[in-house]
Amino acid sequence: MYNICIMQNENNDIIYGKNSVLEALIAGEREFNKILIANNIHSDTKLNQIKELAQKKGVVFQFVAKEKFSQWAGLNHQGVIAQISPIKYTDLDEFLEQKHQNASLVILDGIEDSHNLGAIIRTCVCAGVSAIIIPSRRNVQINSIVEKTSAGAINHIPIIKVNSLVSTVQRLKNSDWWVIATDASAKDNYYNINYCDMNFALIMGAEHSGVSKSLIKEADFLVKIPMLKDFNSLNVSNALSAIIFETVRQKSER
Amino acid sequence: MYNICIMQNENNDIIYGKNSVLEALIAGEREFNKILIANNIHSDTKLNQIKELAQKKGVVFQFVAKEKFSQWAGLNHQGVIAQISPIKYTDLDEFLEQKHQNASLVILDGIEDSHNLGAIIRTCVCAGVSAIIIPSRRNVQINSIVEKTSAGAINHIPIIKVNSLVSTVQRLKNSDWWVIATDASAKDNYYNINYCDMNFALIMGAEHSGVSKSLIKEADFLVKIPMLKDFNSLNVSNALSAIIFETVRQKSER
Repeated sequence: MYNICIMQNENNDIIYGKNSVLEALIAGEREFNKILIANNIHSDTKLNQIKELAQKKGVVFQFVAKEKFSQWAGLNHQGVIAQISPIKYTDLDEFLEQKHQNASLVILDGIEDSHNLGAIIRTCVCAGVSAIIIPSRRNVQINSIVEKTSAGAINHIPIIKVNSLVSTVQRLKNSDWWVIATDASAKDNYYNINYCDMNFALIMGAEHSGVSKSLIKEADFLVKIPMLKDFNSLNVSNALSAIIFETVRQKSER
Repeated sequence: MYNICIMQNENNDIIYGKNSVLEALIAGEREFNKILIANNIHSDTKLNQIKELAQKKGVVFQFVAKEKFSQWAGLNHQGVIAQISPIKYTDLDEFLEQKHQNASLVILDGIEDSHNLGAIIRTCVCAGVSAIIIPSRRNVQINSIVEKTSAGAINHIPIIKVNSLVSTVQRLKNSDWWVIATDASAKDNYYNINYCDMNFALIMGAEHSGVSKSLIKEADFLVKIPMLKDFNSLNVSNALSAIIFETVRQKSER
């Protein structure tokens, strides 16, 4: 039996787990209130890194009785919790003003599941995606489960939050970005598109309903992942992984 | 706040969610005790399919007060729960006796997370993998979370449970299967291997520790996924997706 609480307040988020805390310390972009470490956990490389970095950066860490962690019993916190300022979103304008060459963006349209969002962020960082765009409504927002599932990756990639995905896509197209949307009824398989020599934004749709029609209409290319069995239900983070690493493969051949 | 209980007993598993129940009915390989449907949920295509198929196959379904579902409050059950016989594992010998041509197998070495295992099963079905091999110890077993996360995919692929992965890999090699293991320190990127014209088994390792040394030693090929940022922590199901769909791409070019 697990109890999972998503904790957030206006000024501080809670992040938990060694990777989440360590990666936030390494990135150094957020203010730490404090780090709590359960006094019954064994020291290991990651915990030592956390303590060293915290000390170096003047972040308070406290050893507390393991009983204090009982309020977070359902979280896989590994005995480490930090109170930290919320992530800073990146502004779309600022992002577009930077110079981009053969860059990639991932746009998420209505992702509902925190675990999926965390896994997507992680995959994007590993595959060198430049930024992730999420809508401010009708999409899961960044919470402590997303932070944990991203294994701290969230500190290594700009997240851009926008009010309207449609007008964002239009702006991208006007700024020389090519827009690719995934659509189960597309003619092209994703590996039949050439992703080199362009900046592209890849739109991934909600777990059940896929990419919205209004965005499909705006896309320059539609791609699908071929399904080898009569079972068309790939998890969205796994779909993204197949496509985004194909773009990595193509670029590596240049 | 979620409460998640993993329910299992010797004779019956609980599966939940429309996809899980529908796909198990379609596959028709397991015995249903009964299906419970909360009387407050709206009818939709999937629920109608469940009711029709259950009727056709003589499976009892009951409408019950939504209060009865409160014991499963933490599960994303969508108002549908079924009591069902456990999945039937496939025997390795039987599997190897079948004729395989350009087939793929996925071997999981120490996967700990139910969500990951569910996502891996789903990806394997979509990518046409012939079977999944899991060890009987030191790996998460098939439970109701795995079933749900697999979105019913578990009913569409043989799962082979073995006592020793090392001796299984040796047997595969003696039966003309090539064995590929993922290893962060491998020289070859996964897309530099030719996966066509052979039967291959791909070993994916545990979330933290990767593939065991004893299995790395047995592998014919070692492959890695290139990491484009200094952040080497791809989720195992996303890593699998990148590799397995590369094998699909290569075969499609033949």
